Amino acid sequence: MPTTDVTYSAQPSPPIDVSTPAVVVDVDVLERNITRTAQTFRERGVELRPHAKTHKVVEIAQRQLAAGAVGLTVATISEAEVFADAGVEDVFIAYPLWLDARNAARLRTLAGHCTVRIGVDSTAALDRIASELHGSGIRVSLELDAGHHRSGVLPAEAPGIFAHARRTGVALDGVFTFPGHSYAPGRPAAVAEQEAEVLGETTAMLREAGFMVSHVSGGSTPTAVTGVDSPATEIRPGVYVFFDAQQLELGSCTIEDVALHVVATVVSRHDRAGSDERRIVVNAGSKVLGSDRPAWATGFGRLPQHPRARVTALSEHHGTIVFPDDEPLPQLGAQLRLIPNHVCLTMNLVDRIQVVQDDQVIGSWEIAARGCND
Amino acid sequence: MPTTDVTYSAQPSPPIDVSTPAVVVDVDVLERNITRTAQTFRERGVELRPHAKTHKVVEIAQRQLAAGAVGLTVATISEAEVFADAGVEDVFIAYPLWLDARNAARLRTLAGHCTVRIGVDSTAALDRIASELHGSGIRVSLELDAGHHRSGVLPAEAPGIFAHARRTGVALDGVFTFPGHSYAPGRPAAVAEQEAEVLGETTAMLREAGFMVSHVSGGSTPTAVTGVDSPATEIRPGVYVFFDAQQLELGSCTIEDVALHVVATVVSRHDRAGSDERRIVVNAGSKVLGSDRPAWATGFGRLPQHPRARVTALSEHHGTIVFPDDEPLPQLGAQLRLIPNHVCLTMNLVDRIQVVQDDQVIGSWEIAARGCND
Repeated sequence: MPTTDVTYSAQPSPPIDVSTPAVVVDVDVLERNITRTAQTFRERGVELRPHAKTHKVVEIAQRQLAAGAVGLTVATISEAEVFADAGVEDVFIAYPLWLDARNAARLRTLAGHCTVRIGVDSTAALDRIASELHGSGIRVSLELDAGHHRSGVLPAEAPGIFAHARRTGVALDGVFTFPGHSYAPGRPAAVAEQEAEVLGETTAMLREAGFMVSHVSGGSTPTAVTGVDSPATEIRPGVYVFFDAQQLELGSCTIEDVALHVVATVVSRHDRAGSDERRIVVNAGSKVLGSDRPAWATGFGRLPQHPRARVTALSEHHGTIVFPDDEPLPQLGAQLRLIPNHVCLTMNLVDRIQVVQDDQVIGSWEIAARGCND
Repeated sequence: MPTTDVTYSAQPSPPIDVSTPAVVVDVDVLERNITRTAQTFRERGVELRPHAKTHKVVEIAQRQLAAGAVGLTVATISEAEVFADAGVEDVFIAYPLWLDARNAARLRTLAGHCTVRIGVDSTAALDRIASELHGSGIRVSLELDAGHHRSGVLPAEAPGIFAHARRTGVALDGVFTFPGHSYAPGRPAAVAEQEAEVLGETTAMLREAGFMVSHVSGGSTPTAVTGVDSPATEIRPGVYVFFDAQQLELGSCTIEDVALHVVATVVSRHDRAGSDERRIVVNAGSKVLGSDRPAWATGFGRLPQHPRARVTALSEHHGTIVFPDDEPLPQLGAQLRLIPNHVCLTMNLVDRIQVVQDDQVIGSWEIAARGCND
C-alpha cells in the first residue's frame, strides 16, 4: 500500500546544543498546533479534551487548557493523579478500568480533587463500580467498539448495559469510542464515518430506550483532522500537539507541523557504493524512538532533511539508516534529527524534553507522568 | 518459519499482591540463571562480562559480580556512570562512541573512578579518542561486523585501523562483535560459528601484523548458550538473567528459566464463540511490555499459563490476547502473567521491579539506569 507522499523542507537544520540522543520540542510549532486544533473544534462546536498520554507534561496540558480545552483525557489513574496534583480540574480516564480495593481507593481520593469520569465496557466492571465508587460523584461512559476490535462493546449491547447501570445506581451517562483502526493509509476518512455512525446509532438507540446520554466522545488524531461530521460532543486527539512519522505518512500533517524530534549523532558509517550497505548508524534506538512500526510504515521513523533515507532497523541504542545510492551519507559525528513513528512512546522513554525556539534550547520540561502505567 | 516448541508448566500462578501492571522478578530463578551461566563460562575458561543494559539494576549487577563476572558491559556513558557510582570497578562500553567535548569530559571523569574500555569502528572516531582521551588510561576495542551489518568493520579493515591507532597513540588492543543476527529460529548455532570465525580470522591477521590483541569479546544470549567453540576470551550476554519470550521461542531457555513477568489484569472480555473475536484485553500494553516484535515471533509476548493464547496487538495500555476456540477465556479482573518479547525494553519502562519469592513480594529494586540513553 503506498504511503502518502511527504513534502519536505529543503532547509538544513543547524545543530542543537544538547547531549545526544535528546528529545527536543519546538515551542512555536507546538503552540501553533495547540491553537489551530483548539480553533478548529471551537468552530465546529465540539469540545476538545486532548489525550495527555501523548505528552505527559504539565506545561503542555496548561497550554491546551488555556487554548480552550474542557479538560484532559488520560489512560490511567496515575496519569490522572499527576495532572490533578498540578491543578487540572477535569479528567476523563478513557479506559475500561477494573476496580479492586487498591485502585478504587485512589479513584475516590482523586474525585475529592477534581471532576472524574471513567470508562466501562461490561456489566461485571459496572458491578465493581457500583460497590466501590458509590457516592464518589464519579461519572461513567460506556466504551463502544467502532471497528477497532480492542475493548468496547457493540452498539446492540449498549442498552442492556445502561439498564444494568440504572439498576445498580451507577452514573452511566455517556459513550465513547477509540477508532484505532484509522491508523492505515487511506483509512482515516472511512473510519471517521464508521465511528460517527456507531456513535449516532448507539446514542439514538439509548435515548429511544429512555436513557440520558450527555457525553458522546470520540476521536483520534487521524480521524479528527478529516473534518467528517460526527454526533460526538467531545473529541480526544492526543498526537496533534507534536505529530509524528505515522501521522506524516498518514497525511494528518505536513513536515512543518512536526514539533518533536529526536536529535542523534552519527556513530558509524559504511559507504560501500553499489552494495545494499550504504548505511549509517545513529545513537538513537528503540530506547528513545520506541519500536512501534506498523506494516505500512516506511521504517522506524523519518529524517526531515533526508526524505529518501529509511530507518531500516532499531536496536536499543542503534538506529540503522540506509541511503539511496545517489545521496551522500552524512559524516561521522554529524547531528541528525529524526521524527519518531509514535511520539507517545518516545515521550515515555525520557525524563525531560528540551524546549527549543529558533533551534536554541530555551529550557526543559519534566515528563511528569512518564511511566504512569497503573 | 516454525518457532521452537515451548514446553509449559501446568502449574497455576497464584495472584501476586501488586498494583497492575507491574514488573515482577522471581529472585530464585534470577539467582539460578546468574549462577548457572557463571559456572558454564568458568568451566569453559571464558570471562563473563554481562551486559547490564538488560537489567539496569545495581542489586543484580552485584549478584553477577559476586558470581564471578569480571566486570560489566554497558551501552552508554550514563549507564557506566550509574554503575561506577554504585562501586562497580570495571566497565566496557561496547559501543562505537563518537566523542565531543561534553561526553569526552564525562569519560575522563569516569576513568578516574573505574577501569574503562570503549568501542570504536572508524579512524575518524579514533582521531577523536586520540585528541580527547589522551592520558586517561581508557582502553579501546575495535568493533567487528560478524554479519549483523549494524556497526563494526569487516575483518579486512581491522589492520588499517590498528595501524592508525598505533600512529595516533590510542590504546587499541581488543576486538569485539555483537552477533545480533542470531535472533531468528534455527540461527544461533550457525551465527555463533560465523562470529567465532570472524573473531579468529581477525585476531590472527592482527597478530601476524604485529599488533597486540589482548581483549577478544563476543556474544549474545542466543549464541552464548549454543556452546560453540570460540576464540573469544570474554563473553557479554545480557538477557540470560531474566530470559524473555524471544529467547523462549529461539530455544535459548525453558519456561522454568524465565525470571521476569509483567503481571496484568483482564479489563475487557469478548467471548463470541465461532468468531475470530474470542479475545481478552489486559491492562499491559506497549508502555510496559515494549513493542519489539520480530517477524518470526508468535506475538507480542507469551502467557506461561496459556501457551496457545496469542498476544496479537499492543496499544499503549491495552494488550489484546486471542484464545483458541476450545479454551475458556480468563474472567474479567483475573490476574495474568505475561512474558515480554524483549525484556531489555520492559526494564527501561518502569522505575522499580517487584522482587518475589514463592509468589510473595519480598521487596523492590530501583532500575537505577533506566532511561540512561546518552
